[in-house]
Amino acid sequence: MSDTASPIETAPPRNLRQRAADVIAECRLLAAMSEEPGRLTRRFLTPPVKEVHAHLRRRMIVLGMTVWVDAVGNLRGLWNPEGSTGKRLVLGSHIDTVPDAGAFDGVLGVVLALELVRSAAELSIPYPIEVIAFSEEEGVRFGVPFLGSRAVAGRFDPALLALQDTEGVTLEKSIRDFGLDPRDMDAAKLDENTFGFFEIHIEQGPVLEAEILQLAAVTAIAGQSRFHVTFSGQANHAGTTPMRLRHDALTAAAEWILAVESEVRRYAARHEAELVATAGKIEAKPNASNVIPGLVKVTLDVRSDRDFVRQIVVEELLAQGEAIASRRGVRFVAEQKMDQPAVSMDEELTALLAEALGGAGFPVRRMPSGAGHDAMVMATRVPSTMLFLRTPGAISHHPDESVMETDVEAALRVSEVFLKRLTFKSL
Amino acid sequence: MSDTASPIETAPPRNLRQRAADVIAECRLLAAMSEEPGRLTRRFLTPPVKEVHAHLRRRMIVLGMTVWVDAVGNLRGLWNPEGSTGKRLVLGSHIDTVPDAGAFDGVLGVVLALELVRSAAELSIPYPIEVIAFSEEEGVRFGVPFLGSRAVAGRFDPALLALQDTEGVTLEKSIRDFGLDPRDMDAAKLDENTFGFFEIHIEQGPVLEAEILQLAAVTAIAGQSRFHVTFSGQANHAGTTPMRLRHDALTAAAEWILAVESEVRRYAARHEAELVATAGKIEAKPNASNVIPGLVKVTLDVRSDRDFVRQIVVEELLAQGEAIASRRGVRFVAEQKMDQPAVSMDEELTALLAEALGGAGFPVRRMPSGAGHDAMVMATRVPSTMLFLRTPGAISHHPDESVMETDVEAALRVSEVFLKRLTFKSL
Repeated sequence: MSDTASPIETAPPRNLRQRAADVIAECRLLAAMSEEPGRLTRRFLTPPVKEVHAHLRRRMIVLGMTVWVDAVGNLRGLWNPEGSTGKRLVLGSHIDTVPDAGAFDGVLGVVLALELVRSAAELSIPYPIEVIAFSEEEGVRFGVPFLGSRAVAGRFDPALLALQDTEGVTLEKSIRDFGLDPRDMDAAKLDENTFGFFEIHIEQGPVLEAEILQLAAVTAIAGQSRFHVTFSGQANHAGTTPMRLRHDALTAAAEWILAVESEVRRYAARHEAELVATAGKIEAKPNASNVIPGLVKVTLDVRSDRDFVRQIVVEELLAQGEAIASRRGVRFVAEQKMDQPAVSMDEELTALLAEALGGAGFPVRRMPSGAGHDAMVMATRVPSTMLFLRTPGAISHHPDESVMETDVEAALRVSEVFLKRLTFKSL
Repeated sequence: MSDTASPIETAPPRNLRQRAADVIAECRLLAAMSEEPGRLTRRFLTPPVKEVHAHLRRRMIVLGMTVWVDAVGNLRGLWNPEGSTGKRLVLGSHIDTVPDAGAFDGVLGVVLALELVRSAAELSIPYPIEVIAFSEEEGVRFGVPFLGSRAVAGRFDPALLALQDTEGVTLEKSIRDFGLDPRDMDAAKLDENTFGFFEIHIEQGPVLEAEILQLAAVTAIAGQSRFHVTFSGQANHAGTTPMRLRHDALTAAAEWILAVESEVRRYAARHEAELVATAGKIEAKPNASNVIPGLVKVTLDVRSDRDFVRQIVVEELLAQGEAIASRRGVRFVAEQKMDQPAVSMDEELTALLAEALGGAGFPVRRMPSGAGHDAMVMATRVPSTMLFLRTPGAISHHPDESVMETDVEAALRVSEVFLKRLTFKSL
């Protein structure tokens, strides 16, 4: 226990364990709101998002919050303590998911935010709290992530409205079909009178578990490059085309996918950097067992906490794609979809969060995030920080994703201390 | 020119060039008889097959042939020269097509067969010739190929009648709806008094074009193995999972796809065999750019004219799949979908066809077929051989499929010599 402990740090623990159990139950309840029966897939502005909004809206109203949905589909609620004239704190995370997702990625941060509004009332927090359930973070439906936080941070490029999903529906139409008006996008911007953004999220990686830790304060979010890569060869009969006369787009793509794996290992070791690269999505045409693939599309996702390392490895990987394709008489085209520099969390807020960890009796662990988060976009607009929860088995983006009740309880305890300590920032 | 040249080999060429042009025009005319406007799709016993039958029946009658349709819908015509008591030769190919097909796959062999009946009359061929327009070869409508030639070869399993197409229509009903009676299937069997089957078909591959050759005698139809292969790893977040802790199903599959390619090249060289292998279809799950693929399914298609080589390379490829998966902490499962032995063409007939190539002044090229053909099934019942025509750009199963007029002329010339040389076989 820190010697600067606030009164709540020394008060007897309220029933946070039960509230943690309720938070987990609520996340599981929301996981049933899916596009597909029996598994959780909830893309941006699909019908189950309406169900999630209805559920969260009821909870916000019970908490005495003013509720609205902005033009990009973010559900927002404002809790305003009586007599407050101070600046607000924004809490939140996202409610969209990857296909066949777990129940906690994103949603946990939203449900905990509402739990913290309850705490704020109990603890007489004197400043307003806005909770945002961001509509889009994963980039699944339109291939571009952070649509929700972009709008809040005032970084929503209207050109995005022309994006199409796999059914050819534009982003603009999906917004209108949801009952919203994209012309109201400016009104989604964060209130000027905001002093900070705080996101709670599962780590989605193996680090905390390996160190037998429950929580960490996030120092930075890794930079990220994404590419759509196409190998174009020649579709031909699988039985009649000798190996030497083939221009097989899939063997070319396979050679490149292996090169990505080995080069990234080599660069990470050489530069002692956090560096990962993934080919996550692949599509072949005509994709028939008796036809040599004429066209293969692969995605490339490269992340590092060091922008320099990320840039040089990307250049190397693209050069190798060119070389492999050229040797095989295949065409290689790489289209950049993202070039996001690493983003530091706000130093002061992160220091206060780390102190809250210590103040609540937990080891003070700071770590960078390998995953992108809404806090990365919000940080361009307002001082931001994040709290990570240990992820059992490092299993995320998978139905087996889980959190431990004791870790959720710990997150609630630390966050309450953090909210209390932030009071001076709201003045 | 061979020193065993027959009279027609030394006679001045008749106007075979014009007849080749007519053959091509007739194939294009038949290509307009389709289930779909603007593109050629003609599945087994669909309405346009009636149009094709009506057209070919008229041509057969003009040629003095006796015409009937057997119980599986093969259109058959018998040309019986005056005074003949010899055994018959059967000529033919198929009239069904893949979806969005070209004009020559199958149909060219039927139209050339009728042209050869005309030649037979002119050249006083002394034995009967039966022409068969096989009703089904591609396996598109009922998922099982060679229905037409199975019935003629006496290998039609009555259990096939229960097969259903995608609309739920059984094979039995489709036969009845066409005005035929499946109980007559036995009568479709080849006449006992038959000495050979000869099929002319486009190569559907790049070999002849690459060697600047027009024609080849087919020595065998390659045997074929098909597998559905699954790599099961662990789906995880692409940003937070260090490379060393991944169980990526796609990098495992990529390593195996490359191994398939290099092993097949190595085995083909070592055994001097015709050997090809193709991973034609690939599907990843969850197939999202920011998730490490947890599951990848790939098809494997291996073909060779030598069953021994095909079997040992398949064993090697499956062993490598196991080894690659095991090293990566990924599970490998291979499910066999096809194990079709190679079928040799009749040695004597093929030697006579090769001699006819030389006798008509063409280079003698023999090659195996990597694709299946009706001759493969007919060979189980009667000595059979095939003649391949060069396929421009190796483009087949595609509207751009074509043949060159000079190649069709060459096929007519060689076939006439072949028919003449076969006379002794009919006695």
